[in-house]
Amino acid sequence: MRIDVWSDVVCPWCYIGKRRLESALAEFEHADDVEVVWHSYELDPAAPSEPVESMAEVLARKYGGGVENAQRMMDQVEAVAAEEGLLYRLAQTQRVNTVDAHRLLHLALHDAGSAVQGRLKEALLAANFIEVRNVADHATLAEIAVGVGLDPERVTQVLSGDEFRDEVYADVAQAGAFGATGVPFFVVESKYGISGAQPVEVFTRALQRAWDESRPALEMVDGAGDQACGPDGCAI
Amino acid sequence: MRIDVWSDVVCPWCYIGKRRLESALAEFEHADDVEVVWHSYELDPAAPSEPVESMAEVLARKYGGGVENAQRMMDQVEAVAAEEGLLYRLAQTQRVNTVDAHRLLHLALHDAGSAVQGRLKEALLAANFIEVRNVADHATLAEIAVGVGLDPERVTQVLSGDEFRDEVYADVAQAGAFGATGVPFFVVESKYGISGAQPVEVFTRALQRAWDESRPALEMVDGAGDQACGPDGCAI
Repeated sequence: MRIDVWSDVVCPWCYIGKRRLESALAEFEHADDVEVVWHSYELDPAAPSEPVESMAEVLARKYGGGVENAQRMMDQVEAVAAEEGLLYRLAQTQRVNTVDAHRLLHLALHDAGSAVQGRLKEALLAANFIEVRNVADHATLAEIAVGVGLDPERVTQVLSGDEFRDEVYADVAQAGAFGATGVPFFVVESKYGISGAQPVEVFTRALQRAWDESRPALEMVDGAGDQACGPDGCAI
Repeated sequence: MRIDVWSDVVCPWCYIGKRRLESALAEFEHADDVEVVWHSYELDPAAPSEPVESMAEVLARKYGGGVENAQRMMDQVEAVAAEEGLLYRLAQTQRVNTVDAHRLLHLALHDAGSAVQGRLKEALLAANFIEVRNVADHATLAEIAVGVGLDPERVTQVLSGDEFRDEVYADVAQAGAFGATGVPFFVVESKYGISGAQPVEVFTRALQRAWDESRPALEMVDGAGDQACGPDGCAI
């Protein structure tokens, strides 16, 4: 069974949603037969590669109320993240572009498969929200990507070119085709959509339902003939 | 989309059913996205490798009424086969074992994929029913298998050993698990079963139904939260 997840490396609800999905999978008896594939979604494609603004400043600019209000908003999200064991340091995060991080996630899936891609996704989220590293910086990205097992030469090659850019845009377009207007956005077995970081039990129910439906008993199609051969001979 | 077919190389209704499935696929607009995989079914596992009895004699022995009655039965099947463009020569076919033919069909699928396997299946059926060749004879089998593109060394290796025998038995067991008591037995997308060489329209309906159902619109799972980030910011 397959779960496709659209998310961004700088999306605080995405990391929380990832943990909730993982909690559901940890209790799911067929988890070994579930493949999770991460897809690109750029929340802020206009963000610069070099950080020039903190997320606190971005929030204050966007919602008003100054840095105090921004801090209150971040405190609320940090409290929810903490419930999932994630110690966010949102006040220190910077506004940066994520297209290169997404291109590396495509490289990981393409060259090394979904398990390695999952490790890279986790490392990038942790780098941004917990370690407060710049996930647009090429040296940082390369260190993280090589750290999860990607080939250093391929990483350098991808970062220095445009490879997988089309795949990033295709992912964003696919999310739109599914009706997603934000992330995280989960699609279970190309069948059930889950929008946002919903409670663990929502994931659990969707997993169980998709699993049950993917293994229906064979339905015999009734037809006109009985033209078959068996151990006792052929019908004539 | 995938179609799994259980059949035997010496089963007259199987070749007829194969043609009817092919007729349905020829008119099916998504035929390029359909993969057909052939599975083993031994109608007569006790049959000898060296032919010692014609199928006419087998039928006379089994159903009584002498060779005349056997010929009448064969005439009827030949008439139906002719409607599908298949010029059977049943009176000349011999009772032979098919396990080695099935082992080569597994080799074809394993080493060369389902397209080559399909060509081998076709060649074996034609060899038995139309060309009246002995499909248990290793030299004949090797010639046919190499003729569709299999590696001569691998063919010799498989024929001289026991390779893929377990796969043959596993196929037969799987057919039983699906409730098949004879062949041909078709399974469309692990969902719809078709027993016997049914009319083309039965295949057409099953193909269309499975296709439509394999591409459902995404169903959104309603949950409690709206914890997501979009281009305009993150919900808090």
